Amino acid sequence: MTILINGVAGFIGCNLAQTFLAQGRRVAGFDNFCRGERRNLEGVKNHPAFAFLEVELSDINAFFAAAERIHVNTPITEIWHMAANSDIPAGITDAQVDLRDTFMTTFNTLEVMKRLNIPTLAFASSSAIYGDHNGAHLYEDMGPLFPISNYGAMKLASEAAISAAVEAWLKRACVFRFPNVIGTPATHGALLDFVRKLKKMPANLEVLGDGTQQKSYLHVDELIDAMLFIRDHAPEQLAYYNIGADDDGVTVRFMAEQVVSAASPGAKITYGQSNKGWVGDVPRFTYSIDKLRALGWSPKLGSAVAVTQAINQIIEQETVR
Amino acid sequence: MTILINGVAGFIGCNLAQTFLAQGRRVAGFDNFCRGERRNLEGVKNHPAFAFLEVELSDINAFFAAAERIHVNTPITEIWHMAANSDIPAGITDAQVDLRDTFMTTFNTLEVMKRLNIPTLAFASSSAIYGDHNGAHLYEDMGPLFPISNYGAMKLASEAAISAAVEAWLKRACVFRFPNVIGTPATHGALLDFVRKLKKMPANLEVLGDGTQQKSYLHVDELIDAMLFIRDHAPEQLAYYNIGADDDGVTVRFMAEQVVSAASPGAKITYGQSNKGWVGDVPRFTYSIDKLRALGWSPKLGSAVAVTQAINQIIEQETVR
Repeated sequence: MTILINGVAGFIGCNLAQTFLAQGRRVAGFDNFCRGERRNLEGVKNHPAFAFLEVELSDINAFFAAAERIHVNTPITEIWHMAANSDIPAGITDAQVDLRDTFMTTFNTLEVMKRLNIPTLAFASSSAIYGDHNGAHLYEDMGPLFPISNYGAMKLASEAAISAAVEAWLKRACVFRFPNVIGTPATHGALLDFVRKLKKMPANLEVLGDGTQQKSYLHVDELIDAMLFIRDHAPEQLAYYNIGADDDGVTVRFMAEQVVSAASPGAKITYGQSNKGWVGDVPRFTYSIDKLRALGWSPKLGSAVAVTQAINQIIEQETVR
Repeated sequence: MTILINGVAGFIGCNLAQTFLAQGRRVAGFDNFCRGERRNLEGVKNHPAFAFLEVELSDINAFFAAAERIHVNTPITEIWHMAANSDIPAGITDAQVDLRDTFMTTFNTLEVMKRLNIPTLAFASSSAIYGDHNGAHLYEDMGPLFPISNYGAMKLASEAAISAAVEAWLKRACVFRFPNVIGTPATHGALLDFVRKLKKMPANLEVLGDGTQQKSYLHVDELIDAMLFIRDHAPEQLAYYNIGADDDGVTVRFMAEQVVSAASPGAKITYGQSNKGWVGDVPRFTYSIDKLRALGWSPKLGSAVAVTQAINQIIEQETVR
């Protein structure tokens, strides 16, 4: 019995692979190294229960051939679809990016599952599907859903395709609506940007936006713990849950100050004008995890602690590299 | 100044073309005749202010070339995107159908509008985006949105892509969430099915499903009136409105009985077992048009009258053909 992880060389994917292998599961991983990185597989690539194939998931023929190759020897019983564009601004400049990497990879995952009769899908959705509700508390059953980035749009499109598949043939789907997730190996995100900027120019940190954007952050270890809990305990055929920290989050200003204090004390921080870091950035939201808490899972760390912990890990990562 | 209608040879598209031409507007129309029919263009094809091109809208290069050809001579200021798969069961059997005909045609419409700097999009969305809420009153801002057909999923995906475009560059979008629309030229739907079945076998009418499905129906003339009203009066940059009859609708049993009484009195009606006509069919819903009424538009006909009117028109259509 194999668990297939799409996007296994990405931030979440490689952490998931390590978790499943530590549990004694057999794991196959696909990635095209478009945003995932080879070095993220260092910790798992020689594990006897791990198989990796370099595959372009937006190409259905390549994807199906690779999945079938795994499946005939060690049947795939779950696909964890973590592959997506992770560069939201890039997807706003060119809508093709999220069409291909965020949506078509999901669409093809469903096609492969249908053809190979794979029962369970675990899907990395996002708070971005909700769009901008002016800071309102985002809960799973709210509407309307008008994403303001192509990333959010193609995550919502993916959820919709999964929903139709569940109605027609898919046995089970877990839809995890991710918050901002932090930790290592960091491949993108504000913390990594700040650390890298300060490494180049230690006296100054230039922040996009005015620093007032406020979001909750979850450490990747807690995210994985929550996903496994939902897979094992949620009763629904289509289980959709917000995953997040249990607080109102921290501001970009807080994160910038924390990075400066840990990486380059005394550096001057300058801010932009807008309360959006970029077009398509949701400036402020809080995230309801009441549904997840009712199921029985709560995060242990708050956003601030998770941020501080991740900053230290990212500084270490960038020092080694 | 030209209005471009995508899917101009379809049921809604050809009625729209006639309306705009009667208003003295210049109209261009695209269709691939996949589900649209040439005979639907009889009434407009020789009009001096009408131009038709046979175009595959899921092919961005073909679509862009055709749009540019119109645009350089008579600038396109609005696109009415009515093209989509209209055969919901076909899209459930093969997800590619709605991916290509319902979603990619919309995605490409946005791409063409961005490249040619066309300001206004009018989009045929659907009650199918809401999914199955167990008969609950469907209103615009409700959630969650889990469509149960690939048609509904790809309409929701289209709305999401439009929403992201409005945030980034699109000047204005009207998203019309259609109810079941009836009238002529009928190209699909239960009424046409019933009329055709009775023409073949006048003594028997076999109905899919148990006949208890209840939906509201709007006549195409009223639909067009509502769409134009929204375009002209809605204040929002992204204007999204349910359009529908102002009642709880009629059952499939009522429609079957009305068709029998008008087309083949005395025919025996037999029903299926399920309260869904097919996988992906939403068995029962009522539709809130409070938002549209607040804007100032209300339908004149109820579902029952619209159905009766449409039945007579469809019987006439099928007699002539």
